[in-house]
Amino acid sequence: MYQRVAELYPICRSITGDGFRETLRRLHPDVALQLHEVPTGTRVFDWTVPKEWNVREAWIKDSRGEKVVDFARHNLHLLNYSVPFCGTLTLEELRPHLYTLPDRPDWIPYRTSYYKEDWGFCLSQRQLDGMSEGSYEVLVDTSLADGYLTYGECLLPGEETDEVLVSCHACHPSLANDNLSGVALTSALVSTLSRLERRWSYRFLFVPGTIGPIVWLARNDERTEKIRAGLVVACVGDSGSFNFKRSRRGNTELDRAAEHVLRHIGGDAVVEDFSPYGYDERQYGSPGFDLPVGSLRRTPHGRYPQYHTSADDLSLVRADCLAESLRCYLEIVRVLEGNRTYVNLNPKCEPQLGRRGLYSLVGGRTDAERREMAMLWVLNLSDGSNSLLDIAERARMPFPEIVAATRELLGVGLLEERKAA
Amino acid sequence: MYQRVAELYPICRSITGDGFRETLRRLHPDVALQLHEVPTGTRVFDWTVPKEWNVREAWIKDSRGEKVVDFARHNLHLLNYSVPFCGTLTLEELRPHLYTLPDRPDWIPYRTSYYKEDWGFCLSQRQLDGMSEGSYEVLVDTSLADGYLTYGECLLPGEETDEVLVSCHACHPSLANDNLSGVALTSALVSTLSRLERRWSYRFLFVPGTIGPIVWLARNDERTEKIRAGLVVACVGDSGSFNFKRSRRGNTELDRAAEHVLRHIGGDAVVEDFSPYGYDERQYGSPGFDLPVGSLRRTPHGRYPQYHTSADDLSLVRADCLAESLRCYLEIVRVLEGNRTYVNLNPKCEPQLGRRGLYSLVGGRTDAERREMAMLWVLNLSDGSNSLLDIAERARMPFPEIVAATRELLGVGLLEERKAA
Amino acid sequence: MYQRVAELYPICRSITGDGFRETLRRLHPDVALQLHEVPTGTRVFDWTVPKEWNVREAWIKDSRGEKVVDFARHNLHLLNYSVPFCGTLTLEELRPHLYTLPDRPDWIPYRTSYYKEDWGFCLSQRQLDGMSEGSYEVLVDTSLADGYLTYGECLLPGEETDEVLVSCHACHPSLANDNLSGVALTSALVSTLSRLERRWSYRFLFVPGTIGPIVWLARNDERTEKIRAGLVVACVGDSGSFNFKRSRRGNTELDRAAEHVLRHIGGDAVVEDFSPYGYDERQYGSPGFDLPVGSLRRTPHGRYPQYHTSADDLSLVRADCLAESLRCYLEIVRVLEGNRTYVNLNPKCEPQLGRRGLYSLVGGRTDAERREMAMLWVLNLSDGSNSLLDIAERARMPFPEIVAATRELLGVGLLEERKAA
Repeated sequence: MYQRVAELYPICRSITGDGFRETLRRLHPDVALQLHEVPTGTRVFDWTVPKEWNVREAWIKDSRGEKVVDFARHNLHLLNYSVPFCGTLTLEELRPHLYTLPDRPDWIPYRTSYYKEDWGFCLSQRQLDGMSEGSYEVLVDTSLADGYLTYGECLLPGEETDEVLVSCHACHPSLANDNLSGVALTSALVSTLSRLERRWSYRFLFVPGTIGPIVWLARNDERTEKIRAGLVVACVGDSGSFNFKRSRRGNTELDRAAEHVLRHIGGDAVVEDFSPYGYDERQYGSPGFDLPVGSLRRTPHGRYPQYHTSADDLSLVRADCLAESLRCYLEIVRVLEGNRTYVNLNPKCEPQLGRRGLYSLVGGRTDAERREMAMLWVLNLSDGSNSLLDIAERARMPFPEIVAATRELLGVGLLEERKAA
Repeated sequence: MYQRVAELYPICRSITGDGFRETLRRLHPDVALQLHEVPTGTRVFDWTVPKEWNVREAWIKDSRGEKVVDFARHNLHLLNYSVPFCGTLTLEELRPHLYTLPDRPDWIPYRTSYYKEDWGFCLSQRQLDGMSEGSYEVLVDTSLADGYLTYGECLLPGEETDEVLVSCHACHPSLANDNLSGVALTSALVSTLSRLERRWSYRFLFVPGTIGPIVWLARNDERTEKIRAGLVVACVGDSGSFNFKRSRRGNTELDRAAEHVLRHIGGDAVVEDFSPYGYDERQYGSPGFDLPVGSLRRTPHGRYPQYHTSADDLSLVRADCLAESLRCYLEIVRVLEGNRTYVNLNPKCEPQLGRRGLYSLVGGRTDAERREMAMLWVLNLSDGSNSLLDIAERARMPFPEIVAATRELLGVGLLEERKAA
Repeated sequence: MYQRVAELYPICRSITGDGFRETLRRLHPDVALQLHEVPTGTRVFDWTVPKEWNVREAWIKDSRGEKVVDFARHNLHLLNYSVPFCGTLTLEELRPHLYTLPDRPDWIPYRTSYYKEDWGFCLSQRQLDGMSEGSYEVLVDTSLADGYLTYGECLLPGEETDEVLVSCHACHPSLANDNLSGVALTSALVSTLSRLERRWSYRFLFVPGTIGPIVWLARNDERTEKIRAGLVVACVGDSGSFNFKRSRRGNTELDRAAEHVLRHIGGDAVVEDFSPYGYDERQYGSPGFDLPVGSLRRTPHGRYPQYHTSADDLSLVRADCLAESLRCYLEIVRVLEGNRTYVNLNPKCEPQLGRRGLYSLVGGRTDAERREMAMLWVLNLSDGSNSLLDIAERARMPFPEIVAATRELLGVGLLEERKAA
C-alpha cells in the first residue's frame, strides 16, 4: 500500500480532469475498475457537474524572469480549479491571489475554488517574504471547459445481492494521508476480498469528494436500498489511533461491528457520533438517504497540523499503519460476513457437551475454558433474537471466538440458522 | 425587580387577608392582574378554603408594660394564622406559645398554623433569654373569620391557545428571597412578554402556597389540558447557582428546554429529578394532573440557612442575580417559542449552499464556520422527526444559533415547517 | 445454621447415592421434604440419569501395608464417582490416577468423574511427595450400578399459586461453604417462611448440581410458568461481600428486588450480569425456560482459593455470616411479598394529610419527615403504573418505609389496590 501511495503522490488531481483519470488507470490491473464519465452540465440533485479542469503550466516570474512560484515544482502551488490568466501585476495587485500559512512558514497550503471562477497561487510564507515589491509576470495556463467528471466503480458480487459500500475520495493532488492512504487501502481491500468467498456483495467507489458521491447517488438512487453497511475510507495512513465516526442512525449493524472490532483491537480507539461535517459520509447520510455508512480513519481530517498542506507528504504515512488499518477494515468485514442468527435446537437445559466431545471431562484445562465459555454463551443466547454479534457483545468476547464456538456446535447439530422471515 | 422586592417586603402577608390583596394591588399597573376572591368554605378537591385572617396588633408586654415582642416591629413575630387571644400568663405558661431558633440566636423563625387553631409568637433566642420569670400580658388582636381567599391571574394571549403557566406563591410575610424574589421576577416576565409577539399564550398566577394552586386547579380543571409547559418561580434572588427541578414526567419539552438553556448558560447549574416535596409543583404534578411543570430556582427552599427566618431579608437578594434569573427564564421561553419542526426540501445529498450565498467560497473564515455547521445540522436532521431543540441538543450548539441557521435556510426555500397532523 | 453445616459436613455425598439420601433425611423434621427417587437411565431432555454410586472403602497401601491415602480419613481423597478397582501398581502406574494441588501443598483437591468411567485419588502434594517409588496396593470398593437419583422438594403454599423457587445443590461431599452453607440457609428459609403468612407459594429444591435441576425441569416442564421469581443458594457462609448474579433477562421483579435490598443493606455488595457459567441458574436460565432466577451468594464459586479443596472446611463458614445471608434472603422475600400496585383515590392535588392526623401540624419534627416523604411519594406515584418497588426506587428509600407509608394511607382510605386485569 505504501508503494501505491508513493506512486500516485506526484500526480496533480482535482475533482475532474486527467490527473484523476490517470490515478484510476494506475490502479489496474489490481483493481478492475469500471470508469464512468459524466458530462459537464449534468444535473445531479441540487448540483451540476462542473466543467473539466486541466493544467498545462502555471508560474509567477519575477522581474528577472525567474520562476518564484512554479506548479511544476509542487502541484499545490496552483489554487485548484484556477481559471486561465496571463498578465503582469505588481506585488500589491498579486497579493489577493496569494495564499500562505503565516503560522507554518515552510508549508504550502492546499486551496480550491471549485464553484467560483478565480485564479491564485499557494506558497510558503517564506517564499512570499522573499518576494520584493515590483512587477511579476503571471501565467495560469489551465483549461476549464465542457468535458467530463470521472469516477471509478468496482462490484464484487457475493451470495447475497445486498451490498457493503466502500467509498474513498481520490481528488486531492499531492497529499499523502488525505487521501492517497484511503485510495491505497481501498485498492488493497478490493484485492483481498476478490480472493475470498463473500456472503455480501461489495461495491467500491473511487470518487471526487462531495460531487462524486452526489453523482453516484443521483445515478443509483434506487440501488441504495441494497446497501446494508458502508464505510468512507480516509486518513488511514498516519500513526494516530483509530477513530470511528458512526453512521447517522448510529446503531446500525455497521456501527456495532466497527465498535466491537475497535473494542477488541487494543489501543486508544475513539468512537464518535455522526456529524454533518466531514467527508462523503455527509452525502450518504443526508436525510433523504440515511444510509448506514460510517467512516473509519486514524486522525480525522482537520485534526492534524499537516492537514491540507504540503506537509501531508510521504513522510506522514507509514507502511505499518496502513497495514494495521487494513486489518481493522478486514475485521469489520469479518463481522459483517459472519453475523448470523442461530436457534439452539436443545433449548431446555444445557445439552450434554461432554458426550459430544465438546467438554473437557476432568476439568482444570485453562486453554479449554474460553472455548467452553463461548459455546455456553452461544447456546444460551441463541433463541432466535440474538445475532452472533449480540452474543459476542454480551459475552464480552471477540467475535471470532464466538464464530468458532458456533461452528463446533453446528458440527454436532445443536444449532440451526434462523432464516429471516 | 429589586425595587419591587424592597417595596413589598414590609407587608404582612398570609394565605388570605388584606396583606395578600395589598401585595397584588401594588403590582398594578405593570401587571394587569385579574383578582379572584373565593369564599371561605368553598370545597376545592380534598380541601376547604379557610377563614380569612387579618391582624391589627399583637404583642407581649412584661410586668413593666414594656412590649418585649411586638408584631409592629417585625411581622414574623406573630405565629402566622394565630387566633385572637388576650390574657396574662406567667413565662412558664407562655413558653409553649413561643418559637425560637436556639442555633441562630439572633434570627426570628417563620412559623404558621394554618390548619390548626392556635396562637403564638416567634422571637429570637436572645429575646427569649432576656425575658425574666414573671407575668406577661399578651394581646393577639387578629380576626379569623369567614371571608375570601384571594389570588391574581393574568393571561397574555398568543397565536396559539395552548398555554405556558408561570406560577409563584405570594403568601409569605417579610421574607425576601422566598418568595418576593419570585413575585418580582414573575411580574417582570409579564411586563417583558406583554411587549413581545407570542406563539403560545402565557398564564401567570400569583397565589398563596399549596391552597392557591389547589383552588386554581379545582376551578380550571378542564383548562389544564391546554398547559404545554409550566414553571414554578421561587427563590430566584440569591447568589446561588441555578437549580432546575424537573417535572414529574421528567422529559417533557419544558424539561428539555430548561436543561438545554442551563447547559449553555455557564456556571454550575444543577438539574434534579422531580420529588413530591417542594413548592406548588407538587400540586401541578399530582398524578391526576401530571402537568409538565418544573421549577427553576437558585438555592432551593430549605437548603440555605436563612430560609424561613428573619435573615431572609433584603440583604439576601441581589439585583444582578434577579436580572440573571430573569434572563434564564426568558431563554427558556425563547426555546419554547422557537421550537418548531421543519422538513428539508432537498433531502437527497446536501444542497449547494455556495450558489445560494450561504457558504464561504474559499474557506478559512472561522467566524463563518459555526454558522455553516448550524446550517448543516439543521439540513441533516430536518427529516420531520427532529425539532429544533432536538437538533440543538444533538449538535451541542445553543438554540439561538440553530434558530438563526433555520431562518437563513427558510430564506432560500430549503426548509418548510412540518405542521402537526 | 452453623450447627447444620457441622452436622452434615462429614457425610460423603455425590450426585446420587446414600450420602445424598442421608443428608436429606437429616433435615427432618425441620424441613418436611418430599423425597423423589428417579431411576437410572431415565431420559431427562438431553441427559440420562446416571448409575447410582456408593462407596464402602477406598485406600492406597504402601509396601509395608500402611494406608497412605484413605477415604475413611477424608472423603475428598476418592475421585468422586470412581468405578471399582483392585490391584497392585507401581507409583509410576498409579500417578495418572492421582490428583494434587502443587501450589497448595497441604490441601486435597475435590475432583469428580461423573460422566466418564474412571477411578482415582485426590491427595495433598505433601502426601504425594512422601510416597516413595515401589508398588502400592489399591482398593476402590465402590458400586456404580442401576439405582436412583434422589432429590428433595418442599412446597409451602401461599395465597397465590404463583411460586418463588429456591434451589440449592446438596451433592458436594465434605465442603462447607460450597454448598452446605446453601443447604443450611435454604433449610432455615423453609422453617422461617413456614411460620409466616405467604402471598406467594414457595418451592424449595435440594438437588444434585446440574443433573438435579435438569431432572426437576424435565418432570415439571409445564409447572415452570408459575415461577415468578427464583434464587439459587450457594456459597453463603463465608465472610465475603454479597454478590447477586442477575437472571438471564436481568430486569425481572426478582432482579430489581435483590438489587434494591443490596443497595440499602450497606457493605460493598456487587451485582453482576447473568452468564451461562455458574451453578444451577444455568439450567433455569437456559433459553427454553428463561426463568427469572438469579443467585445471591457471598464470594462466588471459583473466586476464593479454598474453592473445591479440603480447605473449604468448617473454619471457612461463620455463623454470623450465615445469619446475615439469611436476613438478606428474607429482605428479598419481603419485597416480593409486599410489592403491590395501588391507586391514589384522591389523585387531583395532594389530599390534606393534616386533618387525617398524618401530617405534623407545626412542622420541624425531623423524625416525622421521612414518614411524610414516604407518604408523599406513594401518593404521587400511585397512578396505577408504579408498584411499591418502583416507588421505593424512585424515592431512593428502603422498601419497608414505603410499605409502612402505604399502610397508613390505606388506613385512611386514600389508596386502593390495583388488581391486575
